[in-house]
Amino acid sequence: MTSARSITRVLANKYSPSGAPSLDNFKVMSAPAPTKDSLKENQVLVRSLYLSVDPYQRGRLIGTTNSYVPRYELNKPISNHGVAVVEASASADVAEGDIVYIRGAPWETKSVVDVAAVRKLPTGTIDNARDFVTVFGMPSFTAFVGLTTIGKPKAGETILVSSASGAVGQIVVQLAKARGLRVVGVAGSEDKIELVKSIGADTAFNYKTSDNFVASIKQAAPEGIDIYFDNVGGEFLDAALANINTGARIVSCGMISQYNAKSADEAYGLKNTFNILTKTATFQGILVGKYYGTPTEDEFMAEVGKLYKEGKLQYRIDETTGLENAPQAILNLFDGKNFGKSVVKV
Amino acid sequence: MTSARSITRVLANKYSPSGAPSLDNFKVMSAPAPTKDSLKENQVLVRSLYLSVDPYQRGRLIGTTNSYVPRYELNKPISNHGVAVVEASASADVAEGDIVYIRGAPWETKSVVDVAAVRKLPTGTIDNARDFVTVFGMPSFTAFVGLTTIGKPKAGETILVSSASGAVGQIVVQLAKARGLRVVGVAGSEDKIELVKSIGADTAFNYKTSDNFVASIKQAAPEGIDIYFDNVGGEFLDAALANINTGARIVSCGMISQYNAKSADEAYGLKNTFNILTKTATFQGILVGKYYGTPTEDEFMAEVGKLYKEGKLQYRIDETTGLENAPQAILNLFDGKNFGKSVVKV
Ligand SMILES: NC(=O)c1ccc[n+]([C@@H]2O[C@H](COP(=O)([O-])OP(=O)(O)OC[C@H]3O[C@@H](n4cnc5c(N)ncnc54)[C@H](OP(=O)(O)O)[C@@H]3O)[C@@H](O)[C@H]2O)c1
Ligand SMILES: NC(=O)c1ccc[n+]([C@@H]2O[C@H](COP(=O)([O-])OP(=O)(O)OC[C@H]3O[C@@H](n4cnc5c(N)ncnc54)[C@H](OP(=O)(O)O)[C@@H]3O)[C@@H](O)[C@H]2O)c1
Repeated sequence: MTSARSITRVLANKYSPSGAPSLDNFKVMSAPAPTKDSLKENQVLVRSLYLSVDPYQRGRLIGTTNSYVPRYELNKPISNHGVAVVEASASADVAEGDIVYIRGAPWETKSVVDVAAVRKLPTGTIDNARDFVTVFGMPSFTAFVGLTTIGKPKAGETILVSSASGAVGQIVVQLAKARGLRVVGVAGSEDKIELVKSIGADTAFNYKTSDNFVASIKQAAPEGIDIYFDNVGGEFLDAALANINTGARIVSCGMISQYNAKSADEAYGLKNTFNILTKTATFQGILVGKYYGTPTEDEFMAEVGKLYKEGKLQYRIDETTGLENAPQAILNLFDGKNFGKSVVKV
Repeated sequence: MTSARSITRVLANKYSPSGAPSLDNFKVMSAPAPTKDSLKENQVLVRSLYLSVDPYQRGRLIGTTNSYVPRYELNKPISNHGVAVVEASASADVAEGDIVYIRGAPWETKSVVDVAAVRKLPTGTIDNARDFVTVFGMPSFTAFVGLTTIGKPKAGETILVSSASGAVGQIVVQLAKARGLRVVGVAGSEDKIELVKSIGADTAFNYKTSDNFVASIKQAAPEGIDIYFDNVGGEFLDAALANINTGARIVSCGMISQYNAKSADEAYGLKNTFNILTKTATFQGILVGKYYGTPTEDEFMAEVGKLYKEGKLQYRIDETTGLENAPQAILNLFDGKNFGKSVVKV
């Protein structure tokens, strides 16, 4: 679809206030390629290399204006964190050939973006450009922030991690293990369970083959849960609450089991919140957005970067090739079809 | 029933694992009065003056052994915080005539207790003995701890307080107001609403005449809720969650609407917990027990004692006369029949 003269774009086609999203929410089309002649001052022409695929993008297709994330505009390209190479620049800050990180990168093979939206990555990054939307990407940073600021892990404690083979989960498992915790992972297939154990979980189980979440958690962590890093919400969160110890911290990072609820009434109702009181537990939400540009970001790069360079951190990636296949990659997240951090190689 | 030779006792008669408690859970009986001759070393013979009546006592009649509070033993006197006068002492620490505070005071008109369970109150306390189970009592201290350690109130913020005319709620309303917050109270009758406003709430509403809690809260606090001091749990908590602002703190102090649930399945299921994530809110439980004997207790006495002495703190008390009427006073808490801090004058 893409040639020197044309590009591929993924537009928001329609909103889905509730229920599962489908390919119909997106429109993949081709368009004339932007040229360097069209650049205004402080604009940059970039060619996309990698785009991050994340569950929160579904929330941007709900269509309401009061969500915690702005909705995608219909008939405009959707966007997400991405890495790109600069093809032409009308800014003194970046030059042709620079590799840049873009927070709201449009889902286009080539784009014109404001220089304010890009961050120049170190020279030579081309070989590891993908790292910036994977192991050093937004979900990894979320894992770090949630675990350190809310989880406050202490050696010897037990942490339960849901969606443990995912973009966020893999990092939580490994950072918690590195800090001396007993790690219990949960994921949705035997392959994923194997991965979760291989990266350091002391034990892990497949929630899809459990007929009783409360009992499965109790079996995996008879000593009780000190930290629950919640990526899924709903019934599994409720079961985790039934297993918390005094002083437990529940890091509310995601509720993917609830994102496609057909209506507010269909949302799962949490029954075990009395345990939050009687166990003097803390159930706290985290949004990574407010930590960008803070010292926490440097701490993250120091800790995760170090472990990664020393070969002590693994990060499984689920790479989709071709922007035209990116909408399906979003849908896959809600069926557990991704295995590792989902990313599109443009 | 009580004479020089006989005392009245309130025993636990049977457990009620679920559903509303009834008079049948208690057995009021008379027994021979204990005498000073029967005292062993470090025991004290006390005559009860005032006994606190608190919702958590219902939890001690559930009968399970894994509750956050130990169950009352069947056919033994139930117990709670109380104030008594020493009639005889086999301890060097207290003497006849001393007024003492007893944490686990047996519900008997006269008792023999270990000196370790009593704390001598200042000389002359007889005139304000009741204060130690009311304005300086356990629920007041709970209000202080919950508000300061979890609520972390800041002037200009809005706080929502449920059961606002109750033992805990009255103090929360007044301390929050003294710290410069906008205070929204909720209670179950027009009389109670009047009281709540008269002690400083900026506005208050009767939840029993609301047909939509979410809308009633929004009307009372269009600016949103920064702190929700939760005494009731269940549907009202859910509605409060629908109205929280970014960074909100939910002080989980009590869930009285759920204490009599007929079964775990009947417990109300909280649907709006996604707001905890998207508003990066903190929902945290508090149990006052662990703050006794800590510096927080001194801070409490300094702040609340000062306001009270200066006549800047009011505290409505609902006094029941006669130990034989005390079981009904417990039941009244669950029908909202108490108006103010419930206490028994023995
Ligand atoms: N708060 C923040 O700032 C922030 C930032 C990033 C991500 N998040 C959240 O963190 C969570 C994980 O994100 P991620 O990027 O790491 O995604 P991910 O785990 O890589 O992928 C999503 C996974 O969710 C699981 N899943 C899908 N539907 C489910 C359901 N109904 N019940 C239980 N599990 C289900 C699937 O794994 P299984 O095969 O194991 O079921 C799927 O592979 C998401 O909820 C996301 O929204 C939050
Ligand atoms: N965590 C701790 O350490 C601690 C310590 C003390 C107390 N508490 C808790 O704090 C809460 C208040 O205790 P308190 O001593 O101050 O009691 P209180 O408020 O003086 O008395 C109980 C009040 O609860 C309200 N209520 C009863 N059933 C209700 C229902 N189904 N829905 C809504 N409200 C209901 C009634 O007031 P209305 O007429 O307004 O409905 C009733 O007057 C209780 O939940 C208690 O368990 C916790």
